Amino acid sequence: MTTEDDLIQRILRRIPLRAALARRAGLRIGAGDDAAVLRPSRRAEWVLTCDSFLENVHFLVPIHPSRVVGYKALARATSDLAAMGAVPRLFLLNLALPSQRAATWLGGFLTGMARAARRFGLVLAGGDLAQNATIGINITVLGEVAPGRAVLRSGARPGDLLYVSGRLGAAQLGLELILRGMHRDRRWQPLLRPHLYPPLRLTFGQWLAREQAATAMMDTSDGLSTDLQRLCRASGVGARLWAECFPVVRVPPALHERGFDPLELALHGGEDYELLFTVPRRLSQRIPAAYRGVSITQIGEIVRGRAMLLIGPEGRATSLEARGWDHFRASRKR
Amino acid sequence: MTTEDDLIQRILRRIPLRAALARRAGLRIGAGDDAAVLRPSRRAEWVLTCDSFLENVHFLVPIHPSRVVGYKALARATSDLAAMGAVPRLFLLNLALPSQRAATWLGGFLTGMARAARRFGLVLAGGDLAQNATIGINITVLGEVAPGRAVLRSGARPGDLLYVSGRLGAAQLGLELILRGMHRDRRWQPLLRPHLYPPLRLTFGQWLAREQAATAMMDTSDGLSTDLQRLCRASGVGARLWAECFPVVRVPPALHERGFDPLELALHGGEDYELLFTVPRRLSQRIPAAYRGVSITQIGEIVRGRAMLLIGPEGRATSLEARGWDHFRASRKR
Repeated sequence: MTTEDDLIQRILRRIPLRAALARRAGLRIGAGDDAAVLRPSRRAEWVLTCDSFLENVHFLVPIHPSRVVGYKALARATSDLAAMGAVPRLFLLNLALPSQRAATWLGGFLTGMARAARRFGLVLAGGDLAQNATIGINITVLGEVAPGRAVLRSGARPGDLLYVSGRLGAAQLGLELILRGMHRDRRWQPLLRPHLYPPLRLTFGQWLAREQAATAMMDTSDGLSTDLQRLCRASGVGARLWAECFPVVRVPPALHERGFDPLELALHGGEDYELLFTVPRRLSQRIPAAYRGVSITQIGEIVRGRAMLLIGPEGRATSLEARGWDHFRASRKR
Repeated sequence: MTTEDDLIQRILRRIPLRAALARRAGLRIGAGDDAAVLRPSRRAEWVLTCDSFLENVHFLVPIHPSRVVGYKALARATSDLAAMGAVPRLFLLNLALPSQRAATWLGGFLTGMARAARRFGLVLAGGDLAQNATIGINITVLGEVAPGRAVLRSGARPGDLLYVSGRLGAAQLGLELILRGMHRDRRWQPLLRPHLYPPLRLTFGQWLAREQAATAMMDTSDGLSTDLQRLCRASGVGARLWAECFPVVRVPPALHERGFDPLELALHGGEDYELLFTVPRRLSQRIPAAYRGVSITQIGEIVRGRAMLLIGPEGRATSLEARGWDHFRASRKR
């Protein structure tokens, strides 16, 4: 079974990093983290990343308004800067469009993207246009961070505590309401928002980088179980998650009855764009319970080995499988 | 009639450049040129650009071997660095693939891309993977140039002489042989190469930037007539082209008879990735007739106004229309 991570490893083997060239390019951190880190001068580091947002893969035209597509395309890419603790600076937009989308649809798209650019402090610095059968959006974002302060995925150590911002599973709940056709019911419309306009944790990520409090960090774009596995692999560690502590999405009782399980949504649901990070125990008192109104929750700890364990309410440990989003796994295991 | 350039103007109006943010981002040149120019420190400038290469738009799987796709995807993006006079440093790869392309096809693709990366001195620094119905490649490249030396599109002045590197129309000839099914004839196979593995003019572009000899420069990716119009518009000038001086592709007599017209190919054929540049008359003696085996040809002059005129063998002037590649024009005028 091929997975996305297998394919990435294959690409990196076939286009190997040549150390002399990487040095000349000022490349401090290359492929494999949320973003590349470059050091153009002694006073600054730049963080560079790119992200795809494709029709029929990441969004559906009949369901997702063009404004949402514009906003979310830029938000997704910028979230990788939040996960490094960087300040967003500029972006490039590669846009492929069917010609019939070049009028009204494009208007809404640009409104949403302009809104995201204002909110995140990004400047449009270039791009490319092509006509295509389906809509494809590819965004490159560049951010800035003080030298040595970018928070990587690879720094988690056994004994570190594991935290997450916000509530998990909220975006997946919104998506599933849409996929089940329940989004037209006015009762559930407020629940769609985290899926349509995900908030980013930029200032909190920057605060963690500035304080040098986090040893590792990434954003939860593909689901906690899959993203935590990536963080653990990059750091060469395992993790124990405490199910009772989980900041799971609030699911109204009427939806509970229809099978929406908060813990399942929180463990495997994608697109929350919350920050998942690790902190040495001795620094844990510096982590606030909330930052600018967003809860910050301790959800587990980093351990030796490679296993990811979920500790249930009675202390019973079960193995946690990565069941979040993977583009190249034969099918999504649910 | 909507054109690609109209759409670009619309995007730039809807996501306006905010001067304070652009300054903070160190953005010296934003959208509209071949690439953005950033100044991360006083000692260096960085050039950043991105480019799409899409199945059924830019290439066809039954016709273009996957190695060619890998090579060309990276070459196209890197050509924009050549057009600024920059040294390539690193790239990001966004790859969207149908799952059945993740084995053999991907292998060939990576071989071609690794070859291009070695040739151009580029390091792979990151990217993104997605599964999609068709193949989509989006490349971001970053290069370096000495401060103030990047050559923009906007610097051409009336009186400047207009030059081009190499021969024009060679890539289009190769493409048309393929589209007419003539590529299986062994006689024509050497003529396919400029379309499949276009050479880049990186060292010559860097030489022009270092010598500060060129006032404006861009690469001929969409066809001379269309690209010259862009250079003229960016500089607020017109141009006179001398048809007799044109370094047109050599077309064998047997193909001449079948309607392949060298001047038409040279004026409107895309994907040559040659450098089109302007030089003040007083510096023209510094421009060599050839650079490392590649001919450098004076093909016209920059004039006041906005008109592009083609001067024929008897001195007769006709208006030159932009008839190269445009993604959003209703149809390609030929």
